[in-house]
This record gives sequence, structure tokens and C-alpha cells, in this order.
Amino acid sequence: MKNARLVLPAALLGAAILALTAVSPGAPPDLRVTLERLVRTARETNGAYDTIRSLTDSVGPRLSGSPGDARAVAWVKAALTARGFSNVHPEAVTVPHWERGEESGEIVSPVPFRLSLCALGGSVGTPPGGVEAEVVEAQSLEGVDALGEKAKGRIVLVWKVMERRSDGSGYGATVPIRGAAASRAAKMGAVGALIRSVGTSNARLPHTGSLRYEEGVPKIPAAALANPDADLLHRLLAEGKTVRVRFALSARTLPDALSANVVGEIPGREKPEEIVVLSGHLDSWDLGQGAVDDGAGLGIAIEAARLIGQLPRRPRRTVRVVAFANEENGLAGARAYAVAHAAELPFHAAAIECDSGAGRVSGFAWTAGPSAERVLANVAEILKPFGLGEVKKGGGGADVGALRAAGVPLLSPIQDVSRYFDIHHSADDTFDKIDREELNTGVAAMAALAWALADSEAPLERIPEAERVAPRRER
Amino acid sequence: MKNARLVLPAALLGAAILALTAVSPGAPPDLRVTLERLVRTARETNGAYDTIRSLTDSVGPRLSGSPGDARAVAWVKAALTARGFSNVHPEAVTVPHWERGEESGEIVSPVPFRLSLCALGGSVGTPPGGVEAEVVEAQSLEGVDALGEKAKGRIVLVWKVMERRSDGSGYGATVPIRGAAASRAAKMGAVGALIRSVGTSNARLPHTGSLRYEEGVPKIPAAALANPDADLLHRLLAEGKTVRVRFALSARTLPDALSANVVGEIPGREKPEEIVVLSGHLDSWDLGQGAVDDGAGLGIAIEAARLIGQLPRRPRRTVRVVAFANEENGLAGARAYAVAHAAELPFHAAAIECDSGAGRVSGFAWTAGPSAERVLANVAEILKPFGLGEVKKGGGGADVGALRAAGVPLLSPIQDVSRYFDIHHSADDTFDKIDREELNTGVAAMAALAWALADSEAPLERIPEAERVAPRRER
Repeated sequence: MKNARLVLPAALLGAAILALTAVSPGAPPDLRVTLERLVRTARETNGAYDTIRSLTDSVGPRLSGSPGDARAVAWVKAALTARGFSNVHPEAVTVPHWERGEESGEIVSPVPFRLSLCALGGSVGTPPGGVEAEVVEAQSLEGVDALGEKAKGRIVLVWKVMERRSDGSGYGATVPIRGAAASRAAKMGAVGALIRSVGTSNARLPHTGSLRYEEGVPKIPAAALANPDADLLHRLLAEGKTVRVRFALSARTLPDALSANVVGEIPGREKPEEIVVLSGHLDSWDLGQGAVDDGAGLGIAIEAARLIGQLPRRPRRTVRVVAFANEENGLAGARAYAVAHAAELPFHAAAIECDSGAGRVSGFAWTAGPSAERVLANVAEILKPFGLGEVKKGGGGADVGALRAAGVPLLSPIQDVSRYFDIHHSADDTFDKIDREELNTGVAAMAALAWALADSEAPLERIPEAERVAPRRER
Repeated sequence: MKNARLVLPAALLGAAILALTAVSPGAPPDLRVTLERLVRTARETNGAYDTIRSLTDSVGPRLSGSPGDARAVAWVKAALTARGFSNVHPEAVTVPHWERGEESGEIVSPVPFRLSLCALGGSVGTPPGGVEAEVVEAQSLEGVDALGEKAKGRIVLVWKVMERRSDGSGYGATVPIRGAAASRAAKMGAVGALIRSVGTSNARLPHTGSLRYEEGVPKIPAAALANPDADLLHRLLAEGKTVRVRFALSARTLPDALSANVVGEIPGREKPEEIVVLSGHLDSWDLGQGAVDDGAGLGIAIEAARLIGQLPRRPRRTVRVVAFANEENGLAGARAYAVAHAAELPFHAAAIECDSGAGRVSGFAWTAGPSAERVLANVAEILKPFGLGEVKKGGGGADVGALRAAGVPLLSPIQDVSRYFDIHHSADDTFDKIDREELNTGVAAMAALAWALADSEAPLERIPEAERVAPRRER
């Protein structure tokens, strides 16, 4: 056991903080000085920008199990070492290994047209010549069920428009289709499934992402159409045309492969055994460079931690950068971390996840015990003049979600994602999409937040027992 | 000879108009009534929008000589007939027949990455396995010449950013590279040529367009890279990396094929033998649907003429819609029209070409004899309250340019093209990019302009002899 405080119940800790903040409301003056310094430095830095450029241009796409994934592990290790982090090391993770292969599609009739589509992650391949069938449309998963006999032997198109919203809520409203369309269509006897991309762009680039096959249901091939292509099929069908489509995927799932989470630390000066995790994920989809998903998040995490390490005094607790493996299609990295660090989780004071792109950050979201609200309000008050002071409940992410069961307070940036879903999971996720100034709002906010969490006298109140199980969320 | 006025010198006609407008300055009241009526009707119509939708969705891509080209000829014929045009007929044109085939490319080293590229129109194919070589960069055609020995056995990348401007002037500054890069690189001994796309989008979709091989120079394969891909190569080279690229094109030129210009008319009530041409082109590049290039122009031309035909009284002269064949890679349709109608050209009172997309129109540009300025100012004055009253010199286009030698006054819309070059010549040129309200500004302006030209007592003064040869312009 590393720390006697482990035996102190979390609720008591929370109460202690509450008492402290009640005695001295407002932010401590030295906290203000440090946060303002971090924000000012972060706004001028090229650090995150150059880090993302190096990752995207020298590693490229890095889907779990691919050669790029292995390059990414080596790159993170080298990058953390070069930036002066301590205790840099990979932690082995067994990951799924799915390969896209080649893919093509076309409208066969009424008029030939080459379609822009991509296999959904995890899809089975088609027979070598592809599948060809008449297309029937549904506009929701329930609509697929309602097709009944009409879907038999057909290709089912699920056509639903993802709405553009700055908070990303349009994603939650459509992404369940990506996960479930294939099995729902297969249950109705369909031979293939197509979806309108879960993305907001009208460029002819499809958006991939994972599907989930239900057990006991035939696995049928599934692909996302670029939105203009889905809309073309939708228009033709709305006119009452009989539309035949052929598509061919050579996608396949190979035996599991070895990857790694990569860790590096800025050791704490007083309580080095207490940890504030600052994280992004090192894998990416294969179509683009993984610049905004999640080169940006990883770049922000690394640079924010580096800036903390550059301060004249280290924070009380250790800031640990974690580059998670396999966020996109398995979360094996998140699970492996939670298992490997199980004994340490009670000393995890907080876990921050950056995985919502490179857009402007306006503050942070949190999930913790109720007393955290007042503590974080002090941080927000300091950040407000910089446009970084928004606070709301509901922080977390797919990777740090694995720490929720242990009650670890979870935090994440509040980020403008109104353009994120134009490029997310598509070939368009390339370095040129990064705006340095917007990116640095994330570096500033996360550096400040991580410092505040790592240097406070007492850690945040942990997530109450009753809230430690979260509903499943699609990524 | 159809018209005795043929013997009257054009200059005398111009002087007659000048005299007329000098006697009664300002627009005639009945002209005002008709133009205002046309503009109001045009703003409400779904006509052009539905026409473009029908063309793009039921014909699709229609590169000269392809099956889509033949479908387009049939479609225009049917569309003009269905809309009540007279004298609807195709006029045969022999066109080049180039086929794209399959294409692929990748960075081989320093790090593998699949490139988004497309053959330039007219390019030869590569050997089946593609060409693979180290990449050397130039930033202009002169820069290619200056590479000298460094280009030998290499792939030359010409990297120049096209600037986004509402008047499209960024296109003129970069498109010569598309035409000439291959032969300029071949002269230096290069084995392949790549260019940054002549387009303004940062989507990973390359922009095609014609190249021209110089006689006596080896024909090397040439492709356009999507801009993010070109920028990636540029960044790697700027870092001093040795970059090897492989690309494979199965493009080929087949024997010439048969296509057609398609013509339809609103016959004039007084001088039906005098013609105002209102035109777009029926061919398109093969990557998209040809929605903005030039479904939009053709849709505007057809709908503007249809609205004129719906008026209670026909204009004095005939309004002739011409859907030109082969604008994109040969201009064979334009040349064939000029030849087939040579005897009629002296009776061509004007020719309007719509070929700059579906963006907002603010007026029109003209090329004619000097006295036209005052006549057209009267038209513009009526259109000004509708935001359509901008006038400038320099009207014309690639197709009607063939009529310049005969002195035919040439006109074209002044159109906001700031977003046009995001999708022009790329897979992104699809129907969903059309905004009905913006499109209708073009219908309104062109209907009004065509009426004014077709119903005036005297035609516009013709282009002075000295100005009848225009410099070559890339398309």
C-alpha cells in the first residue's frame, strides 16, 4: 500500500474539501498566478501543433494492430522521452486487428454511378464479386425492423441526417445506427447494410466507425456512404425508382495483435503516488491521418503536461500522460489500464480525457462527487477572463470511463465540435485541418485544469457509488 | 440569305443604337415591366433546380464520348421538348474520348500513406504497376524548368496554392500549371508529374481538368493530388525528407466518338432569323455529377429561356438555347457550332454563356462594341433594385468564344465563385451543392438579359474587328 490515506473513505475527503472551501471562498492567490501563467504560455506555444504534425506526418493512420499502430507506440514513447517526461514506458495491450482491404460500390440501375463508401469497422467482407441487390430504405433502427419481408434479399439503407450542433448532440442521435444497422437488417433477411455517414460534411468522403454484430445473427457486410451518395439513393427511392446497388468489401478480422498504452509522468513533489491522468488515444481510424481524432487530444495532453513540467515548481501530485491503445474499435487499452493499475486506482485523484478534436475549448466538464462543484468553480473563475471558464457536469470519455467504477473523478474539455464531425472518422482527418490558435485553447484549459487537480491540498470528491456505472456510449 | 440587314455594316447599327439611346435616355417603360416580371417569376421558380436535379440524378457524369454523354444528349433533347421549345434537335459533333480507368497512389517512404489523386484529363496511363520514383518539388512552371538534372527519372510535384477569390482570379493564376506541368516536367526527364489540385477545398478530393501535351515531348502520366495530400508531400520535402511515391493510372485515349450539341428555340415574333444564344455545356467531368459544372449553367439557360417563352408576348428575336458538347476536354462542340452556323453568325445578335456554377449572380459581363455600354446600362438600372445590376466588361466563355471571330457580342453572368472552386472538377460536384435561392439569381439575371437582347429594336454593336481574337484561356 503506497498511501495511508487509502483507508480514509472518499466521502470524508469530500467533506474536508467542502469545509476548506467554505472557510476560504474564492481561488487561492497562488493558484491564480500559476493558472494564468499556464494559460498565457499555452496560447503562445507551437508545442501541441508540432506534436500533432509529427504524429500525423511521421506515423500516419494507426488502426489497432496495423504497422501504423506499432509506429505510434514507438512515436509516443520517443515523444514523451524527448519532452523530458519521467517513467516513460509502454504497457502491453492485446488489441483486435481488423483490416479494411479494398472497397468499392456503385449504383447498377437506374443509372450507373460510382459510389463513395467505406466499410464500417469490424464489418465482414463481401464475396469477391460483392453483393448486389435492390435497395430498401429505412430512416431509423425501428424502421429497419418494420421493413419485415421487404428487406429479405435486399440491401437495407438506413438514411438519417446527423445534425450539426456545437455540443455534438447530433452524434448521439445517429451513431446507434452505425453500431446496430447491420444486425438489425440481417434479422430481416438483408444481404447487406448501408448507412448515411454519421458525419456532418457534404463532401463525398464516407465516415467509418465501429459496428457491433449481435450474437446469433448472421454477419452481413456493412458500409457507410458519403452523405451526398446516401442522399442520391434517398432521392431516387423517393421518386419511386427501383435502385440496384453493388458493393464489394475485402475487409477481414485477423487474430488479435499486440499494442500498448504508453505512459509518461511529471512526478508530483509531495504526493507522487497520487495520480492525475491526462489522456488521449494513440490509435486512429485508417482512412485519414488521425489528426483531430485523436492526434489533437493526444497533442493537447502531452503539451499541457509538458507545460506543467516546465513550471518552477512541480504540482503536489503526479501528472501522468496516458496514450491509450485501441479506443476506436475495442477499448482494450482502457480496460488493460484499469486492470494493470487496479491497486493504484484509489490514488487516482482525477482522469482527464481529450478526445473531441481541435476545436475551441471554452471550459471543462466534470463527473465527481457533489462537493467538486465548488472546488471547480474556483478554477473556472480564474479561467473565465480567458474564455475558458465554462463548467458543466458530465465529464469523461470512452477511455477514462473504465476508471469510473473505481470512482475516479472524470473530466474533459468543453469543446466546439460543430466542425469536428465534418472530418471525424473520414479520410479528411488530416493535419491541415488543425488550427493552432483554436488548438491552444485546449492546451491552456487542460494545463490549468490538470495543475489545479494535481496541486490542490485535497483531491476532488470521488464519484458516488451509485453513479459508478455509466450507460454504454458509442464512440 | 435570310436577312437583308446582313449587308448593313455593324458599325452603322451601333451608331443607330447610340442615336436611339441618346434621344431617349433611361430604360423604356415596357422593358422595365417585362424584366421586373421575369425577375419576380425567376425568384419563385423551382424550374432550374428541378432541371439540374433531373440531369444529375438521371444522367450522372457525362464526359465526352462516354455512355453518360450519349444519355445527356438524349436528356437535353427530351428536356427542351418537354418544356415547349421549338426546333429541338441535336447537331452531331465528333469529340475526343478519354477514359479515366482506375487510379491509385501512395507514399512509399518515409512512411506509407495512401494518396488521394486523379489523372488529369488526357493523361496517358502508367505501366500496369505504376511509376515509382523520388519526388522533387517546384512551385511554378518556371520552377520546373529550373529543376534541370534534378528532375531526371523523378516524379515532379508542382505545388502552388490556388487562392480563394469571389471573382475566380485565383484560377487563372494556377490553371496553366495543370495544362503544362506534364510536358514541362517531361522535358527535364521526369517519369511522372503531380500537381496540387487547381481548387480551393481542403477536402481530400482531387480536382481533374485537361492537360495539354506538347508535340515532340514524351508523354508522361500526370495526376492531381487532393490539396491535403499535396501539402503533406510539401511538408515532408520541406523537412528535407527523401520522399518516394508510386502512382498508377489506367487512363487511355480511345478513338474519337460521336456526341452532339443540342439546340432548342423560343422563336422571335418579328425577327426570328436573328438569334440570341443562351448556353451552357452538356458534358461534365467524370468524377462527380456535373451539378455545378455545368448542370447549373445549363439549368439556368434552359429555365431563363423557358420563362421568356411563358411571357404573353415573345421577344422580337429568337432565343436559342444551346447545350454545347465537349466543353471540358476539347471544345469540339463550340467549334462545330461555329462551323455549322457560319452563315447564320452575322444574325447572331448576342451569345450568353453560363458556365461558372450555381453561386449568387450580381449582374453580367459583356464584350461588344463600345456603344453597347449605354444600352446595357439601361438594363442594369432596371435590375439594380434586385441586386442584379452589376455590369462589367469582359463577358464570354469557352464555348461562345468560338463566335468571337464573327464579332458576336458575348455575355455571361457575374457570379460569386468563392465556393465554386471547392468542388469544380472534383467528385464533390454533386446535386446537393446547389442552393436554389442562389441559383435563381442566375435564372433571373439571365432571363432579363436575354429578353433585353432579344427584344431591343436594334441589336448590340458587334465586337470591333481588332478585338475579335482573344488570348487562349484554360478551362
